[in-house]
Formats: sequence, structure tokens, C-alpha cells
Amino acid sequence: MSERLVVIGGDAAGMSAASQARRLRSAGELEIVAFERGHFSSYSACGIPYWVGGDVAARGELIARSPEEHRARDIDLRMRTEVTAIDVPGRRVLSRDLDAGTEAWTDFDKLVIATGARPLRPPLPGIDAPGVHGVQTLDDGQALLDSLERTPGRRAVVVGAGYIGVEMAEALLARGYDVTVLTRGEQPMATLDPDMGRLVHRAMDGLGITTVASAEVTKILTGADGRVRAVATAADEYPADVVVLGTGVVPETSLARAAGLPLGAHGGLLTDLAMRVRGHEDIWAGGDCVEVLDLVSGRERHVPLGTHANKHGQVIGANIGGDYATFPGVVGTAVSKVCDLEIARTGLREKDAREVGLRFVTVTVESTSRAGYYPGAAPMTVKMLAERRTGRLLGVQIVGREGAAKRVDIAAVALTAGMTVEAMTALDLGYAPPFSPVWDPVLIAARKATAAVRAAG
Amino acid sequence: MSERLVVIGGDAAGMSAASQARRLRSAGELEIVAFERGHFSSYSACGIPYWVGGDVAARGELIARSPEEHRARDIDLRMRTEVTAIDVPGRRVLSRDLDAGTEAWTDFDKLVIATGARPLRPPLPGIDAPGVHGVQTLDDGQALLDSLERTPGRRAVVVGAGYIGVEMAEALLARGYDVTVLTRGEQPMATLDPDMGRLVHRAMDGLGITTVASAEVTKILTGADGRVRAVATAADEYPADVVVLGTGVVPETSLARAAGLPLGAHGGLLTDLAMRVRGHEDIWAGGDCVEVLDLVSGRERHVPLGTHANKHGQVIGANIGGDYATFPGVVGTAVSKVCDLEIARTGLREKDAREVGLRFVTVTVESTSRAGYYPGAAPMTVKMLAERRTGRLLGVQIVGREGAAKRVDIAAVALTAGMTVEAMTALDLGYAPPFSPVWDPVLIAARKATAAVRAAG
Repeated sequence: MSERLVVIGGDAAGMSAASQARRLRSAGELEIVAFERGHFSSYSACGIPYWVGGDVAARGELIARSPEEHRARDIDLRMRTEVTAIDVPGRRVLSRDLDAGTEAWTDFDKLVIATGARPLRPPLPGIDAPGVHGVQTLDDGQALLDSLERTPGRRAVVVGAGYIGVEMAEALLARGYDVTVLTRGEQPMATLDPDMGRLVHRAMDGLGITTVASAEVTKILTGADGRVRAVATAADEYPADVVVLGTGVVPETSLARAAGLPLGAHGGLLTDLAMRVRGHEDIWAGGDCVEVLDLVSGRERHVPLGTHANKHGQVIGANIGGDYATFPGVVGTAVSKVCDLEIARTGLREKDAREVGLRFVTVTVESTSRAGYYPGAAPMTVKMLAERRTGRLLGVQIVGREGAAKRVDIAAVALTAGMTVEAMTALDLGYAPPFSPVWDPVLIAARKATAAVRAAG
Repeated sequence: MSERLVVIGGDAAGMSAASQARRLRSAGELEIVAFERGHFSSYSACGIPYWVGGDVAARGELIARSPEEHRARDIDLRMRTEVTAIDVPGRRVLSRDLDAGTEAWTDFDKLVIATGARPLRPPLPGIDAPGVHGVQTLDDGQALLDSLERTPGRRAVVVGAGYIGVEMAEALLARGYDVTVLTRGEQPMATLDPDMGRLVHRAMDGLGITTVASAEVTKILTGADGRVRAVATAADEYPADVVVLGTGVVPETSLARAAGLPLGAHGGLLTDLAMRVRGHEDIWAGGDCVEVLDLVSGRERHVPLGTHANKHGQVIGANIGGDYATFPGVVGTAVSKVCDLEIARTGLREKDAREVGLRFVTVTVESTSRAGYYPGAAPMTVKMLAERRTGRLLGVQIVGREGAAKRVDIAAVALTAGMTVEAMTALDLGYAPPFSPVWDPVLIAARKATAAVRAAG
């Protein structure tokens, strides 16, 4: 007897789950119905800043698989159709066709919730004015590009200096805008410790991006035409022809909450290791709407990243398809860039470590991406946290140029393996003058951290 | 009472050991005498191809620390002084001042042997003719550069297609030579499996480097002036104005052998984990003259690489200085490039795995260095070996463009940690479109290898 799988959300997690389940079970065994409220399926939201900035020429390049391609694989993907309720005991979902305005119930045997995240829009006066843009979805990206086309002005204000904020700052700079970034924090990139964030700040200054720290936005000011004209903080006003919000996202779990499904402290769905919603045998959840276990701190976190969403989808699809897979958790790796400045982190920052009661040492080293004598050797700063007494690696942050970002993978694997910084000093990393100094910067940091652990006693 | 440390060899391992010991013990506690038979101390032999090719302007840039700098740190470094005998029971070494021709015995309390490696010069007719060059030492590099200056011809033959061979091919190409590389193997880069070596071969073809496989050199032909004029194989003759030997190296352990110290199957000194020569409490050895434990195969190997030599020196110096450190072994990581082609390996090749009785699966995946839609995304081929049944990672080889080489570090850490390929599929690696597809190429290979392990049963 055929079963029906219903998927809510047509992006990375949902459609990876659907595709993987389809690979394992034919249409005769498993019917798959997927609902997506937007215009696009399976796209790279992480690519939006590069599309806005012009590095990616066309929106279509960001789409990994179109609705038609999914349908050709026997996945009944219904676009512009929003699920408005989940009836858990009745095993059905209510959906609304956003164009036709019609509603219908669809029964499920198995359900995947992949509703993603929604941008935090601080409840400020003027926040909904024309010219104020989020960049969470392809629809958002298109709206921003249309807005840039329509507006002759060249002053952009980015609110928030996390990954999206700095990437959008680069994109707008590339389009010829005067860019001001306002951040509430002491430094941009609050995903780094402030001492490392300062390096990013300095580099952004050097690029001609104005970064204002400790800037709490109080109001969006509009002109006579109703369109944004400036952003106000307690201290100042920043003229703006366009405003981009990079103020973070929260799990989009209103449906799940209404259905009584278990949510965590960050508002994300809670799942088991097989990505099943806790306590619900036939409901899975993945992507930006779930919380994941941070393997270093032992706490649940919300980490909205396409790479995790894809893994979740894969795991869910494997399990629904009758195979077996798990998602053990994350170590908190993230990489980004602003022009040629590369920024990376993995594991815990100082404040994360303190929050979970860890005592630690920190070291920071300056090295280079290549042998010092090799052309193009660029400075690289590596900060490392290690637990006192045990010497266990807790986290690494890297700021540098070419070759800096992906070096964090060394630490990501070491964290996963629970290595000590002393064990890391013996790692057999790739060495040749065009690729690394004879002591890789990560090894230098590990040596210094080993000494610091011992000195701290 | 002051002790005396004698160090034989003034390059990476020897001088790192001396420097680290000096940091821990003052000149009043420990006298340090070091002997170097060449003209240079503490230099990067790995940088020689880039100096020859012109990427590094001056020889001096390759020197990390001059004899004067060592002496300023109370290390009595005697240049152009060759140790000609070690009297183990008498705890003394005999040295000859190569310029003055005088000999002297020096007593030691502790001894470090860091005599490096010597190039294999196949015993061919003509091998010692002018115009035939090894590139093992700075002196060799200088001799080659002088020879290139003197010779108007533009035809270079490189014998051997390992790391040194391909790097020298690039260097000579950069200097405007017509370059032919002769390799005995089926493909260049025998440190890779032949299927991956083929990718290197193809790329070298594309660069205009002629690579001749299965070419066993039988003779070096000389002209009327006695200088090299061609290289002969059984099948053919290759005109040459200059010949570079990249035919590998062997541990330089003639002194150690004469002194009755323990050597392994590859002719290298055998040490314990603290880098003490086995059975000798006060004698240490490190760098290119020792064999190291391959942590994946469980066998001893000879791996002449500056990065290991530096680690050995650090470990030896720490132990002599009264601290404690070990060198647990290697996993066989090596990276290189030919122009913009990057080449990397870690762990075991197919033949290495077979040799130690392992049964395994292999998978090869084609992916890209960045998100496919991001400018500059370049193809990358990743080959992965995993043990049958257990799924333990055994090795990875990568050939690609920018971002390919150092990706092998992910596998190097995973090998060190003994991870299975299935555990690797969950690794939290850095993802952003400029740095990786949403599934990093290494993750794609791990997924495919996981499936292959299961399929193999």
C-alpha cells in the first residue's frame, strides 16, 4: 500500500529530504507532496549577496532544481501554496493556494517540516517603508534589486554586521553605493570575539565601508513619498536611499508551535538524532527551523546554514526511505568574506565557553598564508581557545586573506574528534611554500595554546 | 655542571633542536656545538624550485636564520665543517674543517643527528657531467642557476616526476625553457594512484610540458666540451642543455651506519616517540635522516619533508631541554603544484593499502572549489579510500585548481582521529559560496565512500 509523504517547504532541507526519499522509494511505494509558499524551489539563499553584488549574473543560477525538475522526479511540488495548519492527531495539513485563494486539507503518513527561518524585523517606526529590505529569500533579493533599479540615490545603510550584513555591504559597495553598516555590537561580526571583530572592522574601514559600532537603530525615517530617507540611532541620523536588514533570523515555527510540537529555547523545533521531531514517530524536521546540538558546548543552538539544511534533508530522506542516517550535531563552523578579507570561526567564542561553565585559555598568533618568502603570502590571524587542565580544543577564529577561511576546517575536524591542542601540534598538515609556512598557522596556534594550558595550570 | 650538546647538521631539524634546547636551558647549563658541512644554515630546501623559477628573488629569502643569528643565541655553529665519524662509546664526534682541512674530536653529553637526505644519483654513464644538477641543497640550487646563466640553450630535461620533478618543470618553464619530464612510472606523481596521476599528466600537457612515461634513463650523453647534450632512454634520445635530477632521495645515514646505530628498511635512523635513537639514551635523530611511523599503515616510512623536520627538531629540543614532547608519526600528507594545478594526498594509495593487507573500496568524485554559480569555481577531483567492513578512512588524493591542495588537511585530521567515512559525512566544514559548494567535495566523496563500503559488504 502506498504511503504519502508531505513536505512543508520547498528549499534545501525539504527538497533534499523529498529527493533522497524518492531515490530510495519509487512513486508506487511513496507518494510525495511538497508545499512551497514562494516562487522558487531548491535555491541557494547564501548566494543572494553575490547576485545582488553582480558576481552571479542571473537569479536562475542560484536555483539548484526548479519545480519542473522536481515534478519530473515524481515529486508533486505545489508552488505558491502555503501550509496554514498542521493537524497532528488527524495526520493532515491545511494549505492555501496563494494565487487562487483556495484551501484544502492533505492527509499524510509521514511529514517533513522545513519551514526555514524568518528575518528579525525589529518593531521600529518606518521598518515597513518602501526601500527597507530583508534578504532571506530569492523573492526578497529580487525586491531589493528592483528597488535599487528604481532609486537613483547611492547611499545604502545596512543594519546589522553579521554574515548577511557584511556580505551585503560588499555587494552594495560593488554596485557603487556609499555603504554604512550599523551594528549594535562593540565590533562587526559578533560571531567572533570582539578582538577578532576589530580586525574585520579595520579591514572594512580600509575598503571604504563605514562601520558604526554600538549603534542601536531607533527609527526608520521616510520622505514625503513615503520611501526611506534615513536611519536614526539614539545618537545620529544616517541618510539612506536603501536599507538592508541583516539583523538575524529566527526559526519559522509558527505552524509547529500552533500544532503543539516541541520547541527549544531559541524557538526551533527539537528533533532526535535521526531528525525526527521529539515524541513524534512520523514527523521529521530539518533546516533553518530546527535547533541542533552544539557538540562542543553540549547545548542546543539555532544555526541557519544551507550546508546543515542539506545534511538534514539527506538524513531525513534516508530514514523515510527505509535507510538509516543521523545528524550528530554541529561544531559551529562558519566562513565568510568581505571583498578579499576572509573570516572564519568554529567552536566556541570566549562568551560561549563562559556561558557553559568552561574555563579556558586563549592565544592569538599572527602568521602568513604561504611561506613568508613566497609571492602573495598574506597575513593571517588565528585565535584559539583551549580548555584549562584538559587542553581540549574549544574554538578557533581566523581572519586573513586568501587561504584563511577554509583553514578553519582543520579545527572543525579536530573539534569533532575531541582533540587536545597538544595532539594538534603533531597534525600532519599539507606543507609546500605556495600553500603554507613550514609551521601552518593553525599548528603555531596549537603550540602556543599548549604552552598556555600548561602555564595556566 | 654544564653539559655539551653536539648537533650534526645545520638545517631544519638540527637547528630547531638546538634553538628549542637553548630556549629551555641557558648557555651556562648547556653548551651547544653544531656542525654544518655546507655554506648555509636553517634554510628552506622546499623553496629552491621557486627561487630557480624566479618567484623568490634572492637566495637569502630562503634562509630562516643565518649562522650569525644562531651564534648570537649562544649556539656555536661551525659552518663548512663536516662530521666524519661518531664514536658512540667514546661520546665524541670527529669533524673536518672543509676549508682549513683540519680535523678535531669534540666530546658530547648529548648528540643530535640531523644529517638529512641525499639525492639518488642513478649510476648512469655521464651522470656527473657538467649541466646535470640535483636540487637538494641551496648549494645545489646556486650551482643550477649558475649553470643556466652559462648555457645559452633552452632545452631542459627533468628526470623524475615526483614533487621535485614537477616543481622544477614549472620553474624551468617559467624561465622560458622547453621542458621534457622523463618518468619511469606509468604517470607523473607516483605518490598518487595512476588514475589521479593521469590528471596531472594531462594538465602538464596543457601547460606545454612534455611528459614521457615509462621512460627509463640509460645514459647521459655529453658533447665535445664534456657538457650534457642529451638524455637517452632505451627507446629514445632527448636533447638537453641542462638536466635536473628529481629522482628522489635517501636518508643520509652513512655516519650513523658506520657508528652502528639502528637503521630501518629504508636506510633511515630508527627512533622512539621522543625522537631518541633506539637503544641510545643520549642520542637523538630527526629530519630527513630518520624513518617515521606511518599511523595509517602501521609501518615505518621515509618522508623527507621540511615540516616534519621542524617538528622533530622541536620535539628533540624540548626533550633535551628538560621538557617533554613526542612525534607520534605521520599520515602521509603532501601537497604540491604545477603552475595553477594543485596536487595533494594523504594516507594510503591503493598499492600502499594492498601492501599492508588492507581491503578497501575507492571512490572518485568530480566537484568544484566554490559554489558552481560563483565566479572562479574550478573543477576538483577527489579520490577516497576506505577500509571494507569498518569504513575507516584510509586515504585521500585531490587534484584541482585553487583551493584543492589544502583541502587535504580535512582528511589528514580525520585520518589522525581514525574516523570512518560515514562519520566524515557529518563534518561541519566551512561553507559559503566563495569557498565551497554546499556539499564540500570532501563530504561528497565521504558520502559516496560510505555507500561503497556498504555495497562491498
